Amino acid sequence: MIRTVKTAVVGVTGYAGAELARLLLRHPRLKNDPPVFAGRVDEKDAARGGVPLAEIHPSLADSKGSGTLRLQPFSWDLFTDLEVDILFLATPHEQSRTWVPEALARGIRVIDLSGAWRLNEAVNREVYAFEDEGSAQAASIQAEAVYGMPELHRAEIAGARIVANPGCYATSIILPLKPLVQAGLVDLKHGIVADSKSGVSGAGKAPSAKTHFMYAADNLSAYGVFGHRHTGELLEQIGIDSSDIIFTPHLLPIPRGILSTVYVHFKETQTRASLAHVYHAFFAGSPMVRLYEKTLPQIQHSVHTHYADIGFQLAADGRRAVIVSCLDNLLKGASGQAVQNMNVMQGWGEAEGLE
Amino acid sequence: MIRTVKTAVVGVTGYAGAELARLLLRHPRLKNDPPVFAGRVDEKDAARGGVPLAEIHPSLADSKGSGTLRLQPFSWDLFTDLEVDILFLATPHEQSRTWVPEALARGIRVIDLSGAWRLNEAVNREVYAFEDEGSAQAASIQAEAVYGMPELHRAEIAGARIVANPGCYATSIILPLKPLVQAGLVDLKHGIVADSKSGVSGAGKAPSAKTHFMYAADNLSAYGVFGHRHTGELLEQIGIDSSDIIFTPHLLPIPRGILSTVYVHFKETQTRASLAHVYHAFFAGSPMVRLYEKTLPQIQHSVHTHYADIGFQLAADGRRAVIVSCLDNLLKGASGQAVQNMNVMQGWGEAEGLE
Amino acid sequence: MIRTVKTAVVGVTGYAGAELARLLLRHPRLKNDPPVFAGRVDEKDAARGGVPLAEIHPSLADSKGSGTLRLQPFSWDLFTDLEVDILFLATPHEQSRTWVPEALARGIRVIDLSGAWRLNEAVNREVYAFEDEGSAQAASIQAEAVYGMPELHRAEIAGARIVANPGCYATSIILPLKPLVQAGLVDLKHGIVADSKSGVSGAGKAPSAKTHFMYAADNLSAYGVFGHRHTGELLEQIGIDSSDIIFTPHLLPIPRGILSTVYVHFKETQTRASLAHVYHAFFAGSPMVRLYEKTLPQIQHSVHTHYADIGFQLAADGRRAVIVSCLDNLLKGASGQAVQNMNVMQGWGEAEGLE
Amino acid sequence: MIRTVKTAVVGVTGYAGAELARLLLRHPRLKNDPPVFAGRVDEKDAARGGVPLAEIHPSLADSKGSGTLRLQPFSWDLFTDLEVDILFLATPHEQSRTWVPEALARGIRVIDLSGAWRLNEAVNREVYAFEDEGSAQAASIQAEAVYGMPELHRAEIAGARIVANPGCYATSIILPLKPLVQAGLVDLKHGIVADSKSGVSGAGKAPSAKTHFMYAADNLSAYGVFGHRHTGELLEQIGIDSSDIIFTPHLLPIPRGILSTVYVHFKETQTRASLAHVYHAFFAGSPMVRLYEKTLPQIQHSVHTHYADIGFQLAADGRRAVIVSCLDNLLKGASGQAVQNMNVMQGWGEAEGLE
Repeated sequence: MIRTVKTAVVGVTGYAGAELARLLLRHPRLKNDPPVFAGRVDEKDAARGGVPLAEIHPSLADSKGSGTLRLQPFSWDLFTDLEVDILFLATPHEQSRTWVPEALARGIRVIDLSGAWRLNEAVNREVYAFEDEGSAQAASIQAEAVYGMPELHRAEIAGARIVANPGCYATSIILPLKPLVQAGLVDLKHGIVADSKSGVSGAGKAPSAKTHFMYAADNLSAYGVFGHRHTGELLEQIGIDSSDIIFTPHLLPIPRGILSTVYVHFKETQTRASLAHVYHAFFAGSPMVRLYEKTLPQIQHSVHTHYADIGFQLAADGRRAVIVSCLDNLLKGASGQAVQNMNVMQGWGEAEGLE
Repeated sequence: MIRTVKTAVVGVTGYAGAELARLLLRHPRLKNDPPVFAGRVDEKDAARGGVPLAEIHPSLADSKGSGTLRLQPFSWDLFTDLEVDILFLATPHEQSRTWVPEALARGIRVIDLSGAWRLNEAVNREVYAFEDEGSAQAASIQAEAVYGMPELHRAEIAGARIVANPGCYATSIILPLKPLVQAGLVDLKHGIVADSKSGVSGAGKAPSAKTHFMYAADNLSAYGVFGHRHTGELLEQIGIDSSDIIFTPHLLPIPRGILSTVYVHFKETQTRASLAHVYHAFFAGSPMVRLYEKTLPQIQHSVHTHYADIGFQLAADGRRAVIVSCLDNLLKGASGQAVQNMNVMQGWGEAEGLE
Repeated sequence: MIRTVKTAVVGVTGYAGAELARLLLRHPRLKNDPPVFAGRVDEKDAARGGVPLAEIHPSLADSKGSGTLRLQPFSWDLFTDLEVDILFLATPHEQSRTWVPEALARGIRVIDLSGAWRLNEAVNREVYAFEDEGSAQAASIQAEAVYGMPELHRAEIAGARIVANPGCYATSIILPLKPLVQAGLVDLKHGIVADSKSGVSGAGKAPSAKTHFMYAADNLSAYGVFGHRHTGELLEQIGIDSSDIIFTPHLLPIPRGILSTVYVHFKETQTRASLAHVYHAFFAGSPMVRLYEKTLPQIQHSVHTHYADIGFQLAADGRRAVIVSCLDNLLKGASGQAVQNMNVMQGWGEAEGLE
Repeated sequence: MIRTVKTAVVGVTGYAGAELARLLLRHPRLKNDPPVFAGRVDEKDAARGGVPLAEIHPSLADSKGSGTLRLQPFSWDLFTDLEVDILFLATPHEQSRTWVPEALARGIRVIDLSGAWRLNEAVNREVYAFEDEGSAQAASIQAEAVYGMPELHRAEIAGARIVANPGCYATSIILPLKPLVQAGLVDLKHGIVADSKSGVSGAGKAPSAKTHFMYAADNLSAYGVFGHRHTGELLEQIGIDSSDIIFTPHLLPIPRGILSTVYVHFKETQTRASLAHVYHAFFAGSPMVRLYEKTLPQIQHSVHTHYADIGFQLAADGRRAVIVSCLDNLLKGASGQAVQNMNVMQGWGEAEGLE
């Protein structure tokens, strides 16, 4: 078999990293060329060639034990030596800000799962307080970075050197809204509401008061009201102002999955068919979106899949709709979409390895 | 101790009934006069004097066993013989429609937990398709029935013969909205959104596909979009039209608790203080509402309490707010509110037995 | 590609059936020859060629909709016409008792996921009260049926016409115990304890009081004490008497997964190495068993995998051990093991389609 | 009303502390004399008279806000000034080791919820590695401390200065086993198995990898095999050796509740009646134990109650039994039992404030 592409993953210890490892390891195009996993490794583990992946994520083990795949000590030389083509960064955004320039300089294409390079407008980047904000290098990379949602930017992703993989909440709101807003149907004066609910894996692996089982279980709480970091993304991608939408995330007592309930008013009376037509036209070439005809999506039907599910109910007056979108925040909301981007970047089938 | 009031409960086998039993059994005014529990009892159980309550709800047992308190076979003569003053109906609405007239005819005051007598307008009652709709008797009782939310109708409840205990979702939406709408602050043209999430006990005890653990667990689903039964209640009580609000209930993977996220636009710019003033004024004499000053309520802080919790975040523009309300659907959303109504009807402290 | 094998599934509407469909649809050997799904279909659905599989299990849909794969009306002629080689029965045991003879008569090999054909001894079959118990035909098929656990009966399965796929609890107890008992290490006089805990999917899809979310959630309960149906299986397969073991199942508040905690006393002092040696020797050629060297298995590491995980702790005295086994009750405990059996029957790699 | 008793609580910020606060605040004997809450308070909070309790535990708030009850800065003088009679310590065991001597010296009786003073035998205390182990003072207090399980030590508790409140797991195992072992029925040669399962609140409030929602949810794991800290307690209190029992705790994906499944062999054949007789005789004067006659206890029936529930199934051979006990780890397993001990120490009704 000829060599296709060499991948590397930094940040495999987190939840999105584990899913990314699973996906890349069974991707049909990468079967004979598993990814390199690199990260912080202490001396003792470095001495034994790194930490077996199965020690980090026991569910990734096979019955032969875990000898071959290891988390190796990170170094740029490692990537150069192994001729890495595509680097997945499942790292905090501060780290992505510093590493992406280095990777690009070495000719490595990057799919960055953090929020480091998603935002075009300075006002929206304020929430991240990037240290290199305003530098020429950062501005240049920012200008080059493509927002990694193939349903919106397929062509640019294909040729991109740096792809900014979308946020999970943002994905669940942009996909149901973009087609309607772009078609000019939505009456923005009324204000859109996006009421989102996410499982706990979205909060990351670091133990905290809010990820404690006793906080999350048997509970529901709203947070980040009028101030969640994903807001900038969805404004820029949908093409609306902050006064046009209220986005409220909630923490669900489940491990994974996002459901967003989106409320819109229309400028003119719509029918079920007119809206379905807009959605079908918009997502015609998009294999990772499932449109529901009669029922509404539920979290359990999208979790452990790579799809974004979209369905809606229209009010009897034809002027208002409740749109429900669901996805797995670790898959279409993170690692699955990252692999989808890789497929587009490589010219492979967009859904390869995602079924 | 002198005799105070004799209570009876029909429908103790359900979730709200179990909570009602617990509350009445430990109510300080009823200590020496426990309620009568009546319902359907088969012959074998009737022969032993009814079913011990502790067999129906093991958590209600004490260490002495369960001998004294029993679910007795229902009969009107039983209530007459025991001189029942107040009858709690935790029964399906069809049953409440037929039983309330009989109870009133016998001079028994009723607190009805079903939806049978909550609605004033015929158009809103259509969703229930009552068999006696349009009869003179039904119309007369309907006209007399008081919506059992002391925060809105304290004086009428005090003298009422028939109190229609509110729905759980409705309670969670009316309480945060009524003060603002009544004060004329809300710009209804924008449309209110009430995005509600409820635990599974709200769906009742009958096993069904939707109450199966495998359906509800690790899931979230919207249902009854543009058509939930509680809509009529909240329109009438808040005093708005169906075009003014979208109410969407969701099924949460938790046993109990409701959180409603309510989105409003204001006619004029508000401040945190101006809104807090309206709420504090409205709920000044209401012991079962807790207003949050800085943070937002969460389900876990209201569950197993009798409070409705209300908090809000105001947008920087002062023109939009996200209001969050939480309550225990079996307590302030059902049995706790029923006891609160009994307290008001009897002239007792409104919070007695609810702390 | 040449034709390999035609499969059919009856019982796809249940939880194990859904997993079986998923596995067969992505099995590398069946890619161009998807299984036939047959079952009870009403007239209206029959008229449209059966029920789209994606309507039954929305998570099985792809973005193209659900047109091609359908649940067709069951008929033996359908299977004959399509030249079905292997029939999977995910049906109640009564149905399997009647259908297996017919299938065998038509030359179709059967993998039966029910308890119909697992038991050799009449005394153990009493719990099922089979209607055809004692008939010559039943006795003949019973004698021929192979218990479908490749780790124990690989060779017989390869040539079998009828494979009785093991119960989920039984699998989780036989696999950790058989190697030790067969090696003569276990002191049966002390009595083995198998304390098992299973997720709710093990109780099936029919709504009941015990599968109600309010019963299972935030709860744990023991059931079937000294009388669970899987007891006969594990006695026969391990080769012990009912007085040698106590098996207690518990209902866990999780969707899927089984953990069995097994307690044994040894005749002679053991070391960690001596026990590990026995396990490694026994499972040397078994790709679907993962042996834990240092830690103990947990449900979350085995769920959504096809492995049975086994680990143990030895007491300081070397005479007692706590063995923990974990598996996904719908995969290694049902459908995954069924596919594993198909692989063995066809002479394919035992783990094909299970990674 | 005459002054009855002044209580103080240190450690109110934890889960057991919150329950303790709730119980003491509504205890009928303490209505006019609420407990003092003391602990670590920073300067800013000290300046405002301490942290309002309702800020720490919002569910403890009433609608009047949270002004009156506060967590005050800890000082011994505070307790002396307020003439504290009984001090509850819901603190880590190291802290209890140092504070109990001081409290006793000041004439304050202590109910200590930690493991600091529960163990009589040095070998069992090794697991705690107390710094003052071997000192005369520690030995003296150790000798004086009474194990706070009224069902076993009612008389000693009544007169005790220092009561060591039992561990939650230990309570769930001692109560079902002590009556049978004391009656000489249990054949210890076979070995007892105690397979225990606990909700996550038992692991405390500090965020950690194991209390992360993603670790605990949808999971079950055994831990502390052959080495859990509660083992010493149960050996001493039941009166058996470590070779007589295997105790295995498991982490359940629920907030609260413990279920222990206990397996025993009998020296001679027993009947259901003979065992029931032993239990009823043992717990005759114990209001906080509920004996199940026909069914087995479940966690959901004991949670939010102050009872320990016990039921059993006897094997057909009359020689083996599975005993199931359930309790709420924060109530009968911690704070409820602490209040029960206070009641006994004060000569009040043992169940006062616990119904």
